Amino acid sequence: MSDKNEAIRLAKRIYDLDEKAYRASGSALGHVYTGDRKARIDEIIRCMETPEVRFNLRQQLALIGNMAHTIEDDDEREKVLGEYEDVIKDFHEFIDKNGGPSGIMDPIIASLNSLTLKNRMEKQHLIICISRSSASGGSHVGLELAEKLNIDYLDSRIIENMIKKLEVTEDIEKATSEIPESEGSSADIDEEILSFENTSKIRKFIHRKNRYHGLNYLDASFFRMTEIITALAKEQDFVIVGRAADRILTNNRIPHISIFITAPFESRITRVQKIRGCDRRTARKILKAADNIHARYYNYYTGLKWGDANNYDLCLNSASYGIDGCVKLIMNLLEPVK
Amino acid sequence: MSDKNEAIRLAKRIYDLDEKAYRASGSALGHVYTGDRKARIDEIIRCMETPEVRFNLRQQLALIGNMAHTIEDDDEREKVLGEYEDVIKDFHEFIDKNGGPSGIMDPIIASLNSLTLKNRMEKQHLIICISRSSASGGSHVGLELAEKLNIDYLDSRIIENMIKKLEVTEDIEKATSEIPESEGSSADIDEEILSFENTSKIRKFIHRKNRYHGLNYLDASFFRMTEIITALAKEQDFVIVGRAADRILTNNRIPHISIFITAPFESRITRVQKIRGCDRRTARKILKAADNIHARYYNYYTGLKWGDANNYDLCLNSASYGIDGCVKLIMNLLEPVK
Repeated sequence: MSDKNEAIRLAKRIYDLDEKAYRASGSALGHVYTGDRKARIDEIIRCMETPEVRFNLRQQLALIGNMAHTIEDDDEREKVLGEYEDVIKDFHEFIDKNGGPSGIMDPIIASLNSLTLKNRMEKQHLIICISRSSASGGSHVGLELAEKLNIDYLDSRIIENMIKKLEVTEDIEKATSEIPESEGSSADIDEEILSFENTSKIRKFIHRKNRYHGLNYLDASFFRMTEIITALAKEQDFVIVGRAADRILTNNRIPHISIFITAPFESRITRVQKIRGCDRRTARKILKAADNIHARYYNYYTGLKWGDANNYDLCLNSASYGIDGCVKLIMNLLEPVK
Repeated sequence: MSDKNEAIRLAKRIYDLDEKAYRASGSALGHVYTGDRKARIDEIIRCMETPEVRFNLRQQLALIGNMAHTIEDDDEREKVLGEYEDVIKDFHEFIDKNGGPSGIMDPIIASLNSLTLKNRMEKQHLIICISRSSASGGSHVGLELAEKLNIDYLDSRIIENMIKKLEVTEDIEKATSEIPESEGSSADIDEEILSFENTSKIRKFIHRKNRYHGLNYLDASFFRMTEIITALAKEQDFVIVGRAADRILTNNRIPHISIFITAPFESRITRVQKIRGCDRRTARKILKAADNIHARYYNYYTGLKWGDANNYDLCLNSASYGIDGCVKLIMNLLEPVK
């Protein structure tokens, strides 16, 4: 049977089932479909054939099922419900043959999400970006996750350290090349600048001169982070907390999973009180300031609203699940989707 | 060994490991721990014993591990990394014995979340509340989910129908009791008011008189919904889309899972265009108006910000996963947490 004929046949069955359920239930609300039979059947066919409006039909089917359940006579109810099950089964077969649910998946966004089925088939690194509201326990979740997955954990402090290391190395190269050979062997210089105090001095000196090409410190640091994060993402798996890493990776078209961890403000105040051992008023102030810094950083470098669910693949409420619960849920998410 | 002794011993090992990794790596950044050994070890012990600040220690351990990885000599690196693994193992054992990660889980919020481990042990119904931004495909997700789980699907239209049915029944009772017996047998009246047109007239009549006890239509409808949703929740499993059901259940202390489905505004505009067959400008207008209605309804009845990740157990981006992907992820979440 052609798909068109199949659609017509099924549409008629749906229309008639509605009529039957209505008659048998004596529904006070009347049919789902009223008025001209031909017009209604055409409407059903259009709903079946157009994934974007198919939802209406499914909702109408749910209403018919609802009505069928209220039929008082046991035999009659079983009969109508049996027909209902058949129609639903055939409807699903039709949908399977004629395209899935209407698309909201965005090809670009989806191509960057490591969890989508398509991407899971390709060889790629597992990169989980965690953003979090202050005191939500998001960093904790990231660290536990990295340990459970046995992959690297990165956060601002660790990346800052990497940047410092890179700068030290570059400083060494620069200092070495700038200093006339006669002033000393490079071995001596190496030894000198590898000691912490002197390295710091050299760094300050070179920073002042030309390090940031006119950029302020934060911008320069953001550039550095972008370099490091994208370079690492090409080489290995990791969990990274903060630093708008999700956006850095998105902008560089590197697949990853972006997760936002948060908890209601009042729950987070309670946690700040525990961490700092301070009163509620002080905790509130600290939290507001901390959230503000996160938000401004994210908004400034991404142009997006920090914590807006639209910007992440998923958001988890740590007050609902706890830190361990969040970790377990994310581990569950990483299981091959059945 | 007492926990205190164990903590002291482990703290010393961590301090010494840092020293060893520093010496072997010749790190340009120096130790993680500098200055007075006794004071640093006391600090490590405090971090170990206090779940709320334990994160600092774990971060420092990550830095030490990071440093150990950069040791150039192969034998030396393996040796230090081996010790590092041992320390990490013992550290985790210590944590397991002395309480888990610092709590952000809110006892009240968590007790209402059906997915938390504690609740999964108790007999209760599976209730999934889905809120969604307009055109995100959230209703679709809810419907597919209900079908996959083989449980009831509810949304505003279906609940409105239930309300109408209830009202019709009550109207019948009321009308019957108000009409003097001499005016006709109740069988006649039943027959008359069960026909759609007359029911509608009766409903209008009674509405005008005293139906809403002075409430406006929306408020009355919200009350009715609250009644229906809480009553159903005590009896059966279901997926419910919209109607601030999550808050209704929270206020009535009924465990459930609350999920917010959304997608970036631009992705949703594209979907509205497909559904309505309109231009982008019109789609944008429609979407803004629709989001606005959702937001106002939710905010008015809950006092909370609609779509704020803090108010839900989890939020999913349908542009990242698609409708099928969202359904599969939620199904994965429902798997017993390992």
